[in-house]
Amino acid sequence: MVSPTRYAALLEYDGSEFCGWQRQDGLGVATVQDAVERAIGKVADENITVTVAGRTDTGVHACAQAVHFETRARRELRSWLRGVNTELPDSVSLLHIVAVDAGFHARFSALARWYRYVILNRGTPPTYLRRKVTWHRRALSVDAMAEAARCFVGRHDFSALRAAACQARSPLRTVHRLEVNRSGPWLWLDVEADGFLHHMVRNLAGTLLAVGGGEHEPAWAAQVLASGERALAGATAPPDGLYLARVTYPPQYKVEAPLNVCRFW
Amino acid sequence: MVSPTRYAALLEYDGSEFCGWQRQDGLGVATVQDAVERAIGKVADENITVTVAGRTDTGVHACAQAVHFETRARRELRSWLRGVNTELPDSVSLLHIVAVDAGFHARFSALARWYRYVILNRGTPPTYLRRKVTWHRRALSVDAMAEAARCFVGRHDFSALRAAACQARSPLRTVHRLEVNRSGPWLWLDVEADGFLHHMVRNLAGTLLAVGGGEHEPAWAAQVLASGERALAGATAPPDGLYLARVTYPPQYKVEAPLNVCRFW
Repeated sequence: MVSPTRYAALLEYDGSEFCGWQRQDGLGVATVQDAVERAIGKVADENITVTVAGRTDTGVHACAQAVHFETRARRELRSWLRGVNTELPDSVSLLHIVAVDAGFHARFSALARWYRYVILNRGTPPTYLRRKVTWHRRALSVDAMAEAARCFVGRHDFSALRAAACQARSPLRTVHRLEVNRSGPWLWLDVEADGFLHHMVRNLAGTLLAVGGGEHEPAWAAQVLASGERALAGATAPPDGLYLARVTYPPQYKVEAPLNVCRFW
Repeated sequence: MVSPTRYAALLEYDGSEFCGWQRQDGLGVATVQDAVERAIGKVADENITVTVAGRTDTGVHACAQAVHFETRARRELRSWLRGVNTELPDSVSLLHIVAVDAGFHARFSALARWYRYVILNRGTPPTYLRRKVTWHRRALSVDAMAEAARCFVGRHDFSALRAAACQARSPLRTVHRLEVNRSGPWLWLDVEADGFLHHMVRNLAGTLLAVGGGEHEPAWAAQVLASGERALAGATAPPDGLYLARVTYPPQYKVEAPLNVCRFW
Protein backbone atom coordinates (compact mmCIF):
# COMPACT_ATOMS: atom_id res chain seq x y z
CA MET A 1 0.00 0.00 0.00
CA VAL A 2 1.18 3.51 -0.80
CA SER A 3 2.23 5.39 2.31
CA PRO A 4 0.42 8.70 2.80
CA THR A 5 1.98 12.03 1.91
CA ARG A 6 1.54 15.05 4.14
CA TYR A 7 0.73 18.34 2.46
CA ALA A 8 0.73 21.90 3.78
CA ALA A 9 -1.64 24.33 2.10
CA LEU A 10 -2.43 28.05 2.34
CA LEU A 11 -5.99 29.29 1.99
CA GLU A 12 -7.62 32.66 1.47
CA TYR A 13 -11.27 32.98 2.48
CA ASP A 14 -14.17 35.31 3.04
CA GLY A 15 -15.28 34.59 6.60
CA SER A 16 -18.57 36.46 6.17
CA GLU A 17 -19.86 33.49 4.19
CA PHE A 18 -19.20 30.92 6.92
CA CYS A 19 -20.03 30.02 10.49
CA GLY A 20 -16.36 30.02 11.36
CA TRP A 21 -13.58 27.61 10.51
CA GLN A 22 -14.47 24.52 12.46
CA ARG A 23 -16.59 21.64 11.18
CA GLN A 24 -19.78 21.28 13.25
CA ASP A 25 -21.07 17.82 12.52
CA GLY A 26 -24.80 17.44 12.26
CA LEU A 27 -25.59 21.13 12.74
CA GLY A 28 -26.01 21.78 9.04
CA VAL A 29 -24.04 25.02 9.11
CA ALA A 30 -21.48 26.07 6.48
CA THR A 31 -17.93 26.13 7.82
CA VAL A 32 -14.64 26.71 6.03
CA GLN A 33 -13.27 23.38 7.21
CA ASP A 34 -16.24 21.57 5.65
CA ALA A 35 -15.77 23.31 2.32
CA VAL A 36 -12.03 22.66 2.28
CA GLU A 37 -12.25 18.99 3.31
CA ARG A 38 -14.95 18.36 0.73
CA ALA A 39 -12.94 20.00 -2.08
CA ILE A 40 -9.65 18.26 -1.24
CA GLY A 41 -11.52 14.98 -0.69
CA LYS A 42 -13.07 15.23 -4.15
CA VAL A 43 -9.65 15.65 -5.78
CA ALA A 44 -8.04 12.99 -3.57
CA ASP A 45 -11.00 10.66 -4.05
CA GLU A 46 -10.90 9.75 -0.35
CA ASN A 47 -12.02 11.26 2.93
CA ILE A 48 -9.72 14.05 4.06
CA THR A 49 -9.32 15.69 7.45
CA VAL A 50 -7.42 18.96 7.60
CA THR A 51 -5.64 20.35 10.64
CA VAL A 52 -5.59 24.13 10.85
CA ALA A 53 -3.03 26.62 12.18
CA GLY A 54 -5.66 28.71 13.95
CA ARG A 55 -9.44 28.37 13.98
CA THR A 56 -11.19 31.57 12.97
CA ASP A 57 -14.56 32.75 14.31
CA THR A 58 -17.66 33.42 12.26
CA GLY A 59 -17.05 36.46 10.06
CA VAL A 60 -13.24 36.42 10.40
CA HIS A 61 -11.33 36.28 7.11
CA ALA A 62 -8.01 34.76 6.13
CA CYS A 63 -5.39 36.03 3.70
CA ALA A 64 -3.27 32.93 4.21
CA GLN A 65 -4.65 30.39 6.66
CA ALA A 66 -2.40 27.32 6.91
CA VAL A 67 -3.52 23.69 7.10
CA HIS A 68 -2.02 20.26 6.73
CA PHE A 69 -3.58 16.97 5.65
CA GLU A 70 -2.50 13.48 4.69
CA THR A 71 -3.55 11.47 1.68
CA ARG A 72 -2.55 8.39 -0.29
CA ALA A 73 -3.61 10.14 -3.50
CA ARG A 74 -0.73 11.05 -5.82
CA ARG A 75 -1.22 14.30 -7.70
CA GLU A 76 1.10 16.92 -9.07
CA LEU A 77 1.08 20.15 -7.07
CA ARG A 78 -0.39 21.95 -10.07
CA SER A 79 -3.20 19.41 -10.26
CA TRP A 80 -4.00 19.84 -6.56
CA LEU A 81 -4.10 23.61 -7.01
CA ARG A 82 -6.35 23.60 -10.07
CA GLY A 83 -8.52 20.71 -8.94
CA VAL A 84 -9.16 21.93 -5.40
CA ASN A 85 -9.89 25.48 -6.59
CA THR A 86 -12.42 24.08 -9.05
CA GLU A 87 -14.20 22.25 -6.22
CA LEU A 88 -14.06 25.08 -3.66
CA PRO A 89 -16.91 27.61 -3.36
CA ASP A 90 -15.96 31.09 -4.60
CA SER A 91 -15.51 32.32 -1.03
CA VAL A 92 -12.38 30.14 -0.58
CA SER A 93 -9.18 29.95 -2.65
CA LEU A 94 -6.29 27.54 -2.34
CA LEU A 95 -3.23 29.77 -2.80
CA HIS A 96 -0.36 27.36 -2.32
CA ILE A 97 0.27 23.69 -1.65
CA VAL A 98 3.48 21.82 -0.93
CA ALA A 99 4.44 18.32 0.24
CA VAL A 100 5.96 18.45 3.71
CA ASP A 101 7.90 16.23 6.06
CA ALA A 102 5.64 14.13 8.31
CA GLY A 103 6.98 16.18 11.25
CA PHE A 104 5.19 19.31 10.02
CA HIS A 105 2.06 20.28 11.94
CA ALA A 106 0.00 23.30 10.85
CA ARG A 107 -0.72 24.26 14.45
CA PHE A 108 2.23 23.04 16.49
CA SER A 109 5.01 23.88 14.03
CA ALA A 110 3.85 27.51 13.72
CA LEU A 111 6.33 30.01 15.13
CA ALA A 112 4.06 33.05 14.83
CA ARG A 113 0.68 34.24 13.64
CA TRP A 114 0.01 37.68 12.24
CA TYR A 115 -3.48 39.17 12.34
CA ARG A 116 -4.57 42.43 10.75
CA TYR A 117 -7.63 44.31 11.99
CA VAL A 118 -9.00 46.89 9.53
CA ILE A 119 -11.25 49.78 10.60
CA LEU A 120 -13.08 52.27 8.38
CA ASN A 121 -13.27 55.40 10.52
CA ARG A 122 -15.74 57.83 8.98
CA GLY A 123 -19.26 59.10 9.49
CA THR A 124 -20.95 56.89 6.91
CA PRO A 125 -20.87 53.10 6.71
CA PRO A 126 -18.87 51.09 4.15
CA THR A 127 -20.69 49.83 1.05
CA TYR A 128 -18.58 47.64 -1.23
CA LEU A 129 -16.43 46.68 1.78
CA ARG A 130 -19.20 45.96 4.25
CA ARG A 131 -18.45 42.80 6.24
CA LYS A 132 -14.81 43.16 5.12
CA VAL A 133 -13.94 46.06 7.44
CA THR A 134 -15.15 47.22 10.83
CA TRP A 135 -16.99 50.52 10.67
CA HIS A 136 -16.29 52.97 13.50
CA ARG A 137 -18.23 56.21 13.24
CA ARG A 138 -16.57 58.26 16.01
CA ALA A 139 -13.20 59.85 15.25
CA LEU A 140 -10.30 57.74 16.54
CA SER A 141 -6.92 58.96 17.76
CA VAL A 142 -4.26 56.72 16.28
CA ASP A 143 -1.66 58.31 18.57
CA ALA A 144 -3.59 57.34 21.69
CA MET A 145 -4.13 53.83 20.32
CA ALA A 146 -0.45 53.41 19.47
CA GLU A 147 0.53 54.59 22.96
CA ALA A 148 -1.89 52.16 24.59
CA ALA A 149 -0.73 49.33 22.32
CA ARG A 150 2.82 49.42 23.64
CA CYS A 151 1.98 47.72 26.95
CA PHE A 152 0.85 44.55 25.17
CA VAL A 153 4.16 43.87 23.45
CA GLY A 154 6.24 41.16 25.11
CA ARG A 155 5.40 38.08 27.18
CA HIS A 156 2.29 38.60 29.34
CA ASP A 157 -0.63 36.88 31.00
CA PHE A 158 -3.45 37.86 28.62
CA SER A 159 -6.33 36.68 30.83
CA ALA A 160 -7.94 40.13 30.57
CA LEU A 161 -8.29 39.69 26.79
CA ARG A 162 -9.42 36.06 26.87
CA ALA A 163 -12.93 34.83 26.12
CA ALA A 164 -14.65 32.84 28.87
CA ALA A 165 -14.88 29.88 26.48
CA CYS A 166 -11.11 29.82 25.85
CA GLN A 167 -9.68 26.33 26.25
CA ALA A 168 -5.97 27.18 26.20
CA ARG A 169 -4.05 25.75 29.14
CA SER A 170 -1.92 28.83 29.68
CA PRO A 171 -2.91 32.51 29.35
CA LEU A 172 0.73 33.42 28.61
CA ARG A 173 1.50 34.65 25.12
CA THR A 174 4.33 36.63 23.55
CA VAL A 175 3.31 39.53 21.33
CA HIS A 176 6.18 40.22 18.95
CA ARG A 177 4.69 43.24 17.24
CA LEU A 178 1.63 45.45 17.63
CA GLU A 179 1.32 48.41 15.31
CA VAL A 180 -1.43 50.94 14.70
CA ASN A 181 -1.48 52.80 11.39
CA ARG A 182 -3.74 55.27 9.64
CA SER A 183 -4.24 56.41 6.05
CA GLY A 184 -7.22 58.70 5.42
CA PRO A 185 -10.33 57.06 6.89
CA TRP A 186 -8.52 53.69 7.24
CA LEU A 187 -6.99 52.43 10.47
CA TRP A 188 -5.37 49.07 10.82
CA LEU A 189 -3.82 47.10 13.65
CA ASP A 190 -1.11 44.55 12.94
CA VAL A 191 -0.45 42.11 15.73
CA GLU A 192 1.96 39.23 15.60
CA ALA A 193 2.41 36.74 18.44
CA ASP A 194 3.53 33.19 19.09
CA GLY A 195 -0.15 32.41 19.54
CA PHE A 196 -3.48 33.92 20.53
CA LEU A 197 -6.12 33.11 23.11
CA HIS A 198 -9.77 32.87 22.08
CA HIS A 199 -11.02 36.35 21.01
CA MET A 200 -7.69 37.86 22.04
CA VAL A 201 -7.25 39.95 18.87
CA ARG A 202 -10.83 41.20 18.92
CA ASN A 203 -10.60 42.05 22.64
CA LEU A 204 -7.31 43.83 21.98
CA ALA A 205 -8.98 45.76 19.14
CA GLY A 206 -11.96 46.58 21.37
CA THR A 207 -9.65 47.85 24.11
CA LEU A 208 -7.66 50.02 21.66
CA LEU A 209 -10.91 51.33 20.14
CA ALA A 210 -12.05 52.42 23.62
CA VAL A 211 -8.79 54.36 24.00
CA GLY A 212 -8.89 55.74 20.44
CA GLY A 213 -12.43 57.01 20.93
CA GLY A 214 -11.45 58.82 24.14
CA GLU A 215 -13.41 56.64 26.59
CA HIS A 216 -10.15 55.85 28.40
CA GLU A 217 -6.64 57.23 28.66
CA PRO A 218 -3.86 55.20 27.00
CA ALA A 219 -2.49 54.22 30.44
CA TRP A 220 -5.74 52.37 31.14
CA ALA A 221 -4.70 49.57 28.75
CA ALA A 222 -1.80 48.56 31.01
CA GLN A 223 -4.13 48.53 34.03
CA VAL A 224 -6.54 46.26 32.17
CA LEU A 225 -3.73 43.90 31.21
CA ALA A 226 -2.30 43.80 34.74
CA SER A 227 -5.73 43.19 36.28
CA GLY A 228 -6.26 39.92 34.42
CA GLU A 229 -9.98 40.79 34.51
CA ARG A 230 -11.88 40.33 31.27
CA ALA A 231 -14.67 42.56 32.61
CA LEU A 232 -12.36 45.58 32.64
CA ALA A 233 -11.24 45.40 28.99
CA GLY A 234 -13.05 46.89 26.01
CA ALA A 235 -15.92 45.08 24.29
CA THR A 236 -15.05 42.34 21.82
CA ALA A 237 -14.67 44.17 18.49
CA PRO A 238 -16.71 42.84 15.54
CA PRO A 239 -15.18 40.11 13.36
CA ASP A 240 -15.76 42.00 10.08
CA GLY A 241 -12.36 43.69 9.86
CA LEU A 242 -10.25 40.79 11.12
CA TYR A 243 -7.87 38.89 8.81
CA LEU A 244 -5.43 36.10 9.58
CA ALA A 245 -2.61 37.57 7.52
CA ARG A 246 0.20 35.04 7.84
CA VAL A 247 1.41 32.01 9.77
CA THR A 248 5.19 31.66 10.05
CA TYR A 249 6.93 28.26 10.06
CA PRO A 250 10.55 27.23 10.34
CA PRO A 251 12.14 27.74 6.88
CA GLN A 252 13.02 24.03 6.61
CA TYR A 253 9.37 23.26 5.75
CA LYS A 254 9.31 25.66 2.79
CA VAL A 255 5.66 26.52 3.46
CA GLU A 256 6.23 30.21 2.78
CA ALA A 257 4.41 31.86 -0.12
CA PRO A 258 4.34 35.43 -1.44
CA LEU A 259 2.78 37.77 1.12
CA ASN A 260 -0.94 38.05 0.55
CA VAL A 261 -2.01 40.52 3.21
CA CYS A 262 -5.28 42.38 2.72
CA ARG A 263 -4.95 46.09 2.06
CA PHE A 264 -7.70 48.57 1.35
CA TRP A 265 -6.00 51.94 1.58
CA MET B 1 -44.93 78.63 -1.42
CA VAL B 2 -41.32 77.86 -0.54
CA SER B 3 -39.08 77.84 -3.59
CA PRO B 4 -37.13 74.62 -4.06
CA THR B 5 -33.49 74.24 -3.08
CA ARG B 6 -31.05 72.36 -5.29
CA TYR B 7 -28.66 69.97 -3.56
CA ALA B 8 -25.55 68.19 -4.80
CA ALA B 9 -24.71 64.88 -3.16
CA LEU B 10 -21.90 62.32 -3.34
CA LEU B 11 -22.65 58.62 -3.07
CA GLU B 12 -20.59 55.48 -2.54
CA TYR B 13 -22.13 52.20 -3.65
CA ASP B 14 -21.57 48.52 -4.25
CA GLY B 15 -22.64 47.99 -7.85
CA SER B 16 -22.72 44.20 -7.48
CA GLU B 17 -26.00 44.56 -5.60
CA PHE B 18 -27.80 46.48 -8.35
CA CYS B 19 -28.89 46.27 -11.96
CA GLY B 20 -26.99 49.45 -12.73
CA TRP B 21 -27.69 53.05 -11.84
CA GLN B 22 -30.74 53.89 -13.86
CA ARG B 23 -34.32 53.50 -12.70
CA GLN B 24 -36.22 50.96 -14.84
CA ASP B 25 -39.86 51.62 -14.19
CA GLY B 26 -42.09 48.59 -14.05
CA LEU B 27 -39.30 46.05 -14.49
CA GLY B 28 -39.07 45.29 -10.79
CA VAL B 29 -35.27 45.36 -10.74
CA ALA B 30 -33.15 46.98 -8.05
CA THR B 31 -31.24 50.02 -9.28
CA VAL B 32 -29.13 52.53 -7.40
CA GLN B 33 -31.28 55.43 -8.59
CA ASP B 34 -34.38 53.76 -7.16
CA ALA B 35 -32.74 53.22 -3.80
CA VAL B 36 -31.41 56.78 -3.65
CA GLU B 37 -34.65 58.46 -4.74
CA ARG B 38 -36.65 56.41 -2.26
CA ALA B 39 -34.30 57.27 0.64
CA ILE B 40 -34.11 61.00 -0.14
CA GLY B 41 -37.86 61.06 -0.78
CA LYS B 42 -38.51 59.55 2.62
CA VAL B 43 -36.47 62.25 4.36
CA ALA B 44 -37.90 65.04 2.15
CA ASP B 45 -41.43 63.66 2.49
CA GLU B 46 -42.05 64.25 -1.20
CA ASN B 47 -41.21 62.56 -4.50
CA ILE B 48 -37.60 63.15 -5.51
CA THR B 49 -35.89 62.73 -8.87
CA VAL B 50 -32.10 62.72 -8.90
CA THR B 51 -29.92 63.57 -11.87
CA VAL B 52 -26.63 61.71 -12.02
CA ALA B 53 -23.14 62.68 -13.22
CA GLY B 54 -22.62 59.38 -15.01
CA ARG B 55 -24.84 56.30 -15.17
CA THR B 56 -22.99 53.15 -14.15
CA ASP B 57 -23.65 49.66 -15.56
CA THR B 58 -24.71 46.61 -13.60
CA GLY B 59 -21.83 45.57 -11.34
CA VAL B 60 -19.93 48.87 -11.55
CA HIS B 61 -19.18 50.54 -8.21
CA ALA B 62 -18.83 54.16 -7.16
CA CYS B 63 -16.48 55.74 -4.63
CA ALA B 64 -18.07 59.15 -5.15
CA GLN B 65 -20.87 59.28 -7.69
CA ALA B 66 -22.38 62.78 -7.92
CA VAL B 67 -26.06 63.66 -8.22
CA HIS B 68 -28.28 66.70 -7.86
CA PHE B 69 -31.93 66.99 -6.87
CA GLU B 70 -34.43 69.67 -5.94
CA THR B 71 -36.77 69.75 -3.01
CA ARG B 72 -38.99 72.14 -1.08
CA ALA B 73 -38.11 70.32 2.13
CA ARG B 74 -35.93 72.31 4.53
CA ARG B 75 -33.43 70.21 6.46
CA GLU B 76 -30.03 70.86 7.97
CA LEU B 77 -27.22 69.20 6.01
CA ARG B 78 -26.50 66.98 9.01
CA SER B 79 -30.12 65.84 9.05
CA TRP B 80 -30.03 64.99 5.36
CA LEU B 81 -26.86 62.98 5.88
CA ARG B 82 -28.11 61.01 8.87
CA GLY B 83 -31.65 60.61 7.62
CA VAL B 84 -30.81 59.51 4.10
CA ASN B 85 -28.16 57.05 5.33
CA THR B 86 -30.72 55.55 7.70
CA GLU B 87 -33.10 54.98 4.78
CA LEU B 88 -30.53 53.69 2.28
CA PRO B 89 -29.79 49.97 1.94
CA ASP B 90 -26.34 49.00 3.26
CA SER B 91 -24.95 48.82 -0.28
CA VAL B 92 -25.23 52.62 -0.67
CA SER B 93 -23.82 55.45 1.49
CA LEU B 94 -24.44 59.16 1.22
CA LEU B 95 -20.97 60.67 1.81
CA HIS B 96 -21.58 64.37 1.37
CA ILE B 97 -24.40 66.79 0.64
CA VAL B 98 -24.37 70.53 -0.03
CA ALA B 99 -26.87 73.15 -1.23
CA VAL B 100 -25.89 74.45 -4.66
CA ASP B 101 -26.76 77.27 -6.99
CA ALA B 102 -29.64 76.43 -9.37
CA GLY B 103 -27.11 76.59 -12.22
CA PHE B 104 -25.36 73.44 -10.98
CA HIS B 105 -26.04 70.29 -12.97
CA ALA B 106 -24.51 66.95 -11.89
CA ARG B 107 -23.94 65.90 -15.48
CA PHE B 108 -23.44 69.09 -17.46
CA SER B 109 -21.39 71.01 -14.90
CA ALA B 110 -18.86 68.18 -14.56
CA LEU B 111 -15.40 69.05 -15.84
CA ALA B 112 -13.95 65.56 -15.55
CA ARG B 113 -14.66 62.01 -14.43
CA TRP B 114 -12.08 59.68 -12.99
CA TYR B 115 -12.57 55.91 -13.18
CA ARG B 116 -10.37 53.30 -11.55
CA TYR B 117 -10.26 49.72 -12.84
CA VAL B 118 -8.79 47.19 -10.39
CA ILE B 119 -7.41 43.81 -11.46
CA LEU B 120 -6.27 40.94 -9.26
CA ASN B 121 -3.61 39.22 -11.36
CA ARG B 122 -2.80 35.84 -9.84
CA GLY B 123 -3.45 32.16 -10.42
CA THR B 124 -6.29 31.80 -7.95
CA PRO B 125 -9.53 33.78 -7.81
CA PRO B 126 -10.32 36.48 -5.23
CA THR B 127 -12.43 35.51 -2.21
CA TYR B 128 -13.32 38.39 0.10
CA LEU B 129 -12.97 40.78 -2.86
CA ARG B 130 -14.92 38.80 -5.45
CA ARG B 131 -17.21 41.09 -7.47
CA LYS B 132 -15.06 44.02 -6.20
CA VAL B 133 -12.06 43.34 -8.44
CA THR B 134 -11.58 41.75 -11.85
CA TRP B 135 -9.67 38.50 -11.70
CA HIS B 136 -7.12 37.90 -14.46
CA ARG B 137 -5.31 34.57 -14.20
CA ARG B 138 -2.64 35.02 -16.89
CA ALA B 139 0.42 37.11 -16.02
CA LEU B 140 0.09 40.69 -17.23
CA SER B 141 2.90 43.01 -18.33
CA VAL B 142 2.27 46.41 -16.82
CA ASP B 143 5.03 47.88 -19.00
CA ALA B 144 3.31 46.76 -22.19
CA MET B 145 -0.03 48.05 -20.91
CA ALA B 146 1.44 51.43 -19.95
CA GLU B 147 3.06 51.73 -23.39
CA ALA B 148 -0.23 50.90 -25.14
CA ALA B 149 -2.13 53.29 -22.88
CA ARG B 150 -0.21 56.33 -24.12
CA CYS B 151 -2.00 56.52 -27.46
CA PHE B 152 -5.37 57.12 -25.77
CA VAL B 153 -4.33 60.30 -23.96
CA GLY B 154 -5.56 63.49 -25.61
CA ARG B 155 -8.58 64.33 -27.77
CA HIS B 156 -9.64 61.44 -29.99
CA ASP B 157 -12.56 59.83 -31.77
CA PHE B 158 -13.20 56.86 -29.45
CA SER B 159 -15.61 55.01 -31.77
CA ALA B 160 -13.46 51.88 -31.48
CA LEU B 161 -14.13 51.74 -27.73
CA ARG B 162 -17.83 52.61 -27.89
CA ALA B 163 -20.70 50.19 -27.28
CA ALA B 164 -23.20 49.74 -30.10
CA ALA B 165 -25.94 51.03 -27.78
CA CYS B 166 -24.10 54.28 -27.03
CA GLN B 167 -26.36 57.30 -27.45
CA ALA B 168 -23.74 60.06 -27.29
CA ARG B 169 -23.94 62.49 -30.21
CA SER B 170 -20.19 62.78 -30.64
CA PRO B 171 -17.52 60.06 -30.26
CA LEU B 172 -14.92 62.71 -29.41
CA ARG B 173 -13.57 62.69 -25.87
CA THR B 174 -10.48 64.10 -24.18
CA VAL B 175 -8.56 61.72 -21.95
CA HIS B 176 -6.58 63.82 -19.48
CA ARG B 177 -4.78 60.96 -17.77
CA LEU B 178 -4.42 57.21 -18.20
CA GLU B 179 -2.09 55.41 -15.82
CA VAL B 180 -1.33 51.75 -15.25
CA ASN B 181 0.16 50.72 -11.93
CA ARG B 182 1.09 47.49 -10.20
CA SER B 183 1.70 46.43 -6.60
CA GLY B 184 2.16 42.69 -6.03
CA PRO B 185 -0.79 40.86 -7.60
CA TRP B 186 -2.75 44.13 -7.96
CA LEU B 187 -2.97 46.14 -11.16
CA TRP B 188 -5.03 49.25 -11.53
CA LEU B 189 -5.85 51.63 -14.35
CA ASP B 190 -6.70 55.25 -13.62
CA VAL B 191 -8.40 57.09 -16.42
CA GLU B 192 -9.66 60.64 -16.26
CA ALA B 193 -11.50 62.32 -19.13
CA ASP B 194 -13.98 65.09 -19.84
CA GLY B 195 -16.50 62.32 -20.39
CA PHE B 196 -16.85 58.71 -21.44
CA LEU B 197 -18.81 56.88 -24.12
CA HIS B 198 -20.90 53.85 -23.19
CA HIS B 199 -18.57 50.98 -22.11
CA MET B 200 -15.54 53.10 -23.00
CA VAL B 201 -13.61 52.38 -19.79
CA ARG B 202 -14.34 48.65 -19.93
CA ASN B 203 -13.38 48.48 -23.61
CA LEU B 204 -10.21 50.40 -22.83
CA ALA B 205 -9.48 47.95 -20.01
CA GLY B 206 -10.21 44.98 -22.29
CA THR B 207 -7.86 46.38 -24.94
CA LEU B 208 -5.07 46.95 -22.41
CA LEU B 209 -5.63 43.47 -20.96
CA ALA B 210 -5.17 41.99 -24.44
CA VAL B 211 -1.83 43.81 -24.69
CA GLY B 212 -0.80 42.98 -21.13
CA GLY B 213 -1.50 39.29 -21.70
CA GLY B 214 0.66 39.27 -24.83
CA GLU B 215 -2.13 38.74 -27.38
CA HIS B 216 -1.11 41.96 -29.12
CA GLU B 217 1.88 44.30 -29.24
CA PRO B 218 1.47 47.70 -27.55
CA ALA B 219 1.43 49.42 -30.97
CA TRP B 220 -1.80 47.56 -31.79
CA ALA B 221 -3.74 49.85 -29.42
CA ALA B 222 -3.07 52.90 -31.61
CA GLN B 223 -4.20 50.96 -34.69
CA VAL B 224 -7.42 50.00 -32.94
CA LEU B 225 -8.08 53.61 -31.94
CA ALA B 226 -7.33 54.95 -35.43
CA SER B 227 -9.56 52.33 -37.08
CA GLY B 228 -12.68 53.48 -35.27
CA GLU B 229 -13.82 49.85 -35.48
CA ARG B 230 -15.28 48.39 -32.30
CA ALA B 231 -14.73 44.88 -33.65
CA LEU B 232 -10.95 45.34 -33.59
CA ALA B 233 -10.65 46.35 -29.92
CA GLY B 234 -10.36 43.99 -26.96
CA ALA B 235 -13.42 42.40 -25.36
CA THR B 236 -15.42 44.51 -22.90
CA ALA B 237 -13.74 43.84 -19.55
CA PRO B 238 -16.02 42.70 -16.68
CA PRO B 239 -17.65 45.38 -14.50
CA ASP B 240 -16.42 43.87 -11.20
CA GLY B 241 -13.24 45.93 -10.86
CA LEU B 242 -14.63 49.24 -12.12
CA TYR B 243 -15.13 52.22 -9.77
CA LEU B 244 -16.27 55.75 -10.52
CA ALA B 245 -13.63 57.41 -8.36
CA ARG B 246 -14.39 61.12 -8.64
CA VAL B 247 -16.32 63.75 -10.59
CA THR B 248 -14.71 67.17 -10.78
CA TYR B 249 -16.76 70.39 -10.80
CA PRO B 250 -15.82 74.06 -11.00
CA PRO B 251 -14.67 75.09 -7.50
CA GLN B 252 -17.41 77.73 -7.26
CA TYR B 253 -19.96 74.98 -6.52
CA LYS B 254 -18.02 73.66 -3.51
CA VAL B 255 -19.09 70.08 -4.26
CA GLU B 256 -15.65 68.68 -3.51
CA ALA B 257 -15.23 66.23 -0.63
CA PRO B 258 -12.22 64.35 0.74
CA LEU B 259 -10.93 61.85 -1.80
CA ASN B 260 -12.59 58.50 -1.32
CA VAL B 261 -10.92 56.35 -3.97
CA CYS B 262 -11.00 52.59 -3.53
CA ARG B 263 -7.64 50.97 -2.80
CA PHE B 264 -6.93 47.35 -2.12
CA TRP B 265 -3.15 47.10 -2.24
